[in-house]
Amino acid sequence: MTELKNDLFLRACLRQDVERTPVWMMRQAGRYLPEYRATRERAGGFLELCRSPELCSEVTLQPIDILGADAAILFSDILVVPEAMGMHLSFGAGEGPKFSDPLRSRTDVEKLPVLDDPTRELDYVMQAVRTIRRDLQGRVPLIGFSGSPWTLATYMVEGGGSKNFSKVKAMMFNEPDTMHLLLAKLADSVAAYLNGQIAHGAQAVQIFDTWGGILTTRDYREFSLAYMQRIIEQLTRENEGRKVPVIVYTKGGMGWLEAIADSGCDVVGLDWSIDIDVARARIGDRVALQGNMDPTMLYAKPERIREEVKDILARFGHGNGHVFNLGHGITPDVPREHAIEFFRAVREESVQYHR
Amino acid sequence: MTELKNDLFLRACLRQDVERTPVWMMRQAGRYLPEYRATRERAGGFLELCRSPELCSEVTLQPIDILGADAAILFSDILVVPEAMGMHLSFGAGEGPKFSDPLRSRTDVEKLPVLDDPTRELDYVMQAVRTIRRDLQGRVPLIGFSGSPWTLATYMVEGGGSKNFSKVKAMMFNEPDTMHLLLAKLADSVAAYLNGQIAHGAQAVQIFDTWGGILTTRDYREFSLAYMQRIIEQLTRENEGRKVPVIVYTKGGMGWLEAIADSGCDVVGLDWSIDIDVARARIGDRVALQGNMDPTMLYAKPERIREEVKDILARFGHGNGHVFNLGHGITPDVPREHAIEFFRAVREESVQYHR
Repeated sequence: MTELKNDLFLRACLRQDVERTPVWMMRQAGRYLPEYRATRERAGGFLELCRSPELCSEVTLQPIDILGADAAILFSDILVVPEAMGMHLSFGAGEGPKFSDPLRSRTDVEKLPVLDDPTRELDYVMQAVRTIRRDLQGRVPLIGFSGSPWTLATYMVEGGGSKNFSKVKAMMFNEPDTMHLLLAKLADSVAAYLNGQIAHGAQAVQIFDTWGGILTTRDYREFSLAYMQRIIEQLTRENEGRKVPVIVYTKGGMGWLEAIADSGCDVVGLDWSIDIDVARARIGDRVALQGNMDPTMLYAKPERIREEVKDILARFGHGNGHVFNLGHGITPDVPREHAIEFFRAVREESVQYHR
Repeated sequence: MTELKNDLFLRACLRQDVERTPVWMMRQAGRYLPEYRATRERAGGFLELCRSPELCSEVTLQPIDILGADAAILFSDILVVPEAMGMHLSFGAGEGPKFSDPLRSRTDVEKLPVLDDPTRELDYVMQAVRTIRRDLQGRVPLIGFSGSPWTLATYMVEGGGSKNFSKVKAMMFNEPDTMHLLLAKLADSVAAYLNGQIAHGAQAVQIFDTWGGILTTRDYREFSLAYMQRIIEQLTRENEGRKVPVIVYTKGGMGWLEAIADSGCDVVGLDWSIDIDVARARIGDRVALQGNMDPTMLYAKPERIREEVKDILARFGHGNGHVFNLGHGITPDVPREHAIEFFRAVREESVQYHR
């Protein structure tokens, strides 16, 4: 493998010394970039793009070139996992994801297979990981990812996005054993999937728990965090002679930071509802922190964006273990120039905290 | 005025002794009740229902009869305030609220009047309050309410509900003075509106800050909490010889409980993302707590609902200052029997904590 030219991100994940704070952005390969929209159009659609290793690599590298991101993140969708488990996934034009055959009963869940060989069911993702690594030529590390078992379960039971999560909550409350069976199958599938990504070249992995925040404390621990821990316990933690950091991001989970930090992960992803100095004081130096600018700050004028970057850097202060990011994904209607200024501001303003 | 037969709610709000924990439910007059749907159909629509004092009273009293709620809450919509300030409000069939003339510029905000005489612009609400008090005949107290300035501003700037809140956030970041002008006008209008409700018979008031939780800590304090404080400072705090408790509910605001408790309110409304014992330990006995069952728990079987009620009661434990509620509004597809069981469980299971 080519030697890594910029390993700021990996070092920050492990709370090692860096010359400046590394920065990447959730959904950095996304619709706010005209370059991305052009590639997706060539692919013929979103799922088609996910299934083309060459085009996946193209959109994954765009923000490295355009923004100067310190890490690339595999372009894919969290729902390719349930799809590979046999569910029928579609994306209508301008709509969210839909499963035509949502899980509603114990029998539905029992019939669901565990993915044990991702090079079989999700080979196109493995090929994308390999292609991206080839194309990156060691410029920055590549992050692999998956949805959390709970987050995947919400889509699989609801049949798509949801406002009230009535069906998945009803299953959790009324048939907890069925829900646990589903989550266990998902955790083991996700562990195999992430290990596949690591084996094919992912140098860090992030678990996206987008919907953990809709749970109570007790339910979060029992139905979301426990299964992320089950994944983490199974992960390959070293590859190509380096540690493979694991990032856990639970949107709306800022009340449970200490528990997340104890999950076995290396990095806790923050949303923007908490000040990063408060998070750091609560967690201490057990893990690194990733975040946490309000993504809508990218609608502000460039000078206001820079001011906010400076504020977050100052709150984190001196010392190691900060990966700059947004608190959630960038939205499609953000001006490209604003994203560029965000990255530039982090690069320029963070140097003083690492002397 | 008729003497109040059940004042458990008012006593609990003021942390006084009660024989059992009082309970009401956000959106208790709502679509999950066939009785409500029948009245709304007779009214000819949602806004028509809001504008009819007699039918408002009918739906406000339904959950008192059906569930045995310990408080009634005025049936209305938070957006009647911007409508009374001159904005054009509509509700499409099956859609959320829409303003055809959203606020987008300094000039738009400057032109907006402050409501100073709610008996003029919102007389139909004042008549509804009077009618409900007449019809309640002192059975339980009546809660008045308003949206928070920030929450109202999100609808007024976005023109309706929103996913990313891009326009209101852009105004806040790029034109903070314009946003402050809007929020000040709203705070003073809401204060006059709530004082009108109190003068006409509301015995407690709740400020609904549904969208405070999308802000960072700094922005929450500056753009939401500060304006709720501005309202509270102007409120009539005693009427008919009793204190008029003020409840502040910020969904997603559990990180800021201490600051909310210091706003001057009597009761802090909790969502379900925090355990009530943790909230009580953080806030102490400065204020009462309202909440906080996950509203989707009402999709569970009755025995599971009762188990959850018992858990929340046990977490709060002995002592005064708990008003039982959901952590957010009841959803339309909950079975009526489940809501009845929820109220029954609180009544029966809470007695032991007040001996």
